[in-house]
Amino acid sequence: MNEILVVGSVALDSVKTPFGEATEALGGSATYASYSASFFAPTRVVAVIGDDFPQEHVKLLQSRNIQTDGLQVAQGRTFRWSGSYEYDLNEAHTLKTELNVFETFKPRIPASYKKSDFVFLANIDPELQLDVLRQVDKPKLVACDTMNLWINLKPDVLRKVIARADFLFINDAEARQFTNTAGLIKAGRTLQSWGPKFVVIKKGEHGSLMFGKDAFFAAPAYPLEEVFDPTGAGDTFAGGFFGCVAKSGGDTSDAALRKAVIYGTAMASFTVEKFSLERLKALTPGQIEDRVRRLKELTHFDLV
Amino acid sequence: MNEILVVGSVALDSVKTPFGEATEALGGSATYASYSASFFAPTRVVAVIGDDFPQEHVKLLQSRNIQTDGLQVAQGRTFRWSGSYEYDLNEAHTLKTELNVFETFKPRIPASYKKSDFVFLANIDPELQLDVLRQVDKPKLVACDTMNLWINLKPDVLRKVIARADFLFINDAEARQFTNTAGLIKAGRTLQSWGPKFVVIKKGEHGSLMFGKDAFFAAPAYPLEEVFDPTGAGDTFAGGFFGCVAKSGGDTSDAALRKAVIYGTAMASFTVEKFSLERLKALTPGQIEDRVRRLKELTHFDLV
Repeated sequence: MNEILVVGSVALDSVKTPFGEATEALGGSATYASYSASFFAPTRVVAVIGDDFPQEHVKLLQSRNIQTDGLQVAQGRTFRWSGSYEYDLNEAHTLKTELNVFETFKPRIPASYKKSDFVFLANIDPELQLDVLRQVDKPKLVACDTMNLWINLKPDVLRKVIARADFLFINDAEARQFTNTAGLIKAGRTLQSWGPKFVVIKKGEHGSLMFGKDAFFAAPAYPLEEVFDPTGAGDTFAGGFFGCVAKSGGDTSDAALRKAVIYGTAMASFTVEKFSLERLKALTPGQIEDRVRRLKELTHFDLV
Repeated sequence: MNEILVVGSVALDSVKTPFGEATEALGGSATYASYSASFFAPTRVVAVIGDDFPQEHVKLLQSRNIQTDGLQVAQGRTFRWSGSYEYDLNEAHTLKTELNVFETFKPRIPASYKKSDFVFLANIDPELQLDVLRQVDKPKLVACDTMNLWINLKPDVLRKVIARADFLFINDAEARQFTNTAGLIKAGRTLQSWGPKFVVIKKGEHGSLMFGKDAFFAAPAYPLEEVFDPTGAGDTFAGGFFGCVAKSGGDTSDAALRKAVIYGTAMASFTVEKFSLERLKALTPGQIEDRVRRLKELTHFDLV
């Protein structure tokens, strides 16, 4: 039983980067996270889509054996996000957010999903994340992700979600903002003190930091000469990480989680090479293994 | 013969951070770099000081067996820098730079230093760095550091220095600026194409990246909950790195240089714990070894 349930957003993203433009391409936190997780463990997804949602996108998820009965089709338009990145690609500038069917979304966890041992609350309104936790049946491990919007709008609800999660994924700027702390090490430790056993701070091109009870792990990003579009990198990372954890049956030993960070890192590095899920679509397990081995090479050193 | 010659600035720094303030404390690129290098190899320093320079600072360098006959005492006041750091400590804001005796400084390399096998051109005017290269006698390896000021004012002279260096140390913002490139991987490769065999990009709390001919190495910063004052961290890193290289007799194998990055990282982590050289003064070799081992622990992972 290592099924992973991913709840989050499915979106149509319009993204502009210095290298090009994509219009109404498949996106959303649950999309990237579930697609990434599916390389490691049986994955099921819960999200809302509008009646305009292209069927090919559902088929794409199904092509990776992701269970999609949890995709609720609502009357109206699918959630849309449009954003742009400047030259440095570090920060997404939101141009427009159309909630559409998301405005009235209430996640309904299908009966067959309720016993998922691994629950990943991808970035959505923390009220909905709490709602999911009320519906699932004692998962072995819960992970959550979030974004600055919810830190600003609903910090107290978000704190409740975090307190119930085993893993928190958060990016560096958000970690600083949420804890009102400049240093990332202190920010990570503070977030940990709010409940989650493990905190992973995602730092984009600077890699990631994982904080455990007595453990600390620092990993670089996979070195790419060209980053094409960073959209979805964090979701892909978290999905890959938590997929690895599910694959191991929930091994939270330091060694297992370090490995999960590295797989998450590799997965994210593919996402940013093209728009949307274009690169992930063509991804093979062998390519993942190559990149993971390369990460080993480029971080290894001996002291003697 | 593994003597290392350090040429750069010796300064009196007035620094304000969110955690406190230091007035006319010992600083300067050559000071931090030589002090750090002295833990690894016999070190000699060339710089200019004014007739107001406190003798205790010279004694401090001598206490680490740093040869100080290259400290040229000029009539007038010592170079002074004052700056402040905001809450995030990432960027130094220069409040005032008083060149003083630096305005007319011409480095004179003492005859007994000319045969130094390892020459570190710490951050100073690139014209002076070139001048040093004209005076030394076929060093085995040359390293240089710089800053945004020289990238702005004298990019062409700086390019000449870089072309003659085996190692270039540069921080992330400067690497992006100098190469007009957003991505650090591409920036590093571009800098390498300008001549130096090895480029090390220093990223502060995010660690460092080293680019070799076919090699690439990523190291995190040592995780500190409190960074007190980042002044001198980059110089300390570079001094420790190049000190290690000198200690090895100039071993530029990938394995040796990775180890040098890690020692540089450890050295820098001590500098930022207090103002000026306060923490370095109390540093013991055992403490360095502890931190280096800790860096091994926190970056290590196994794929099986």
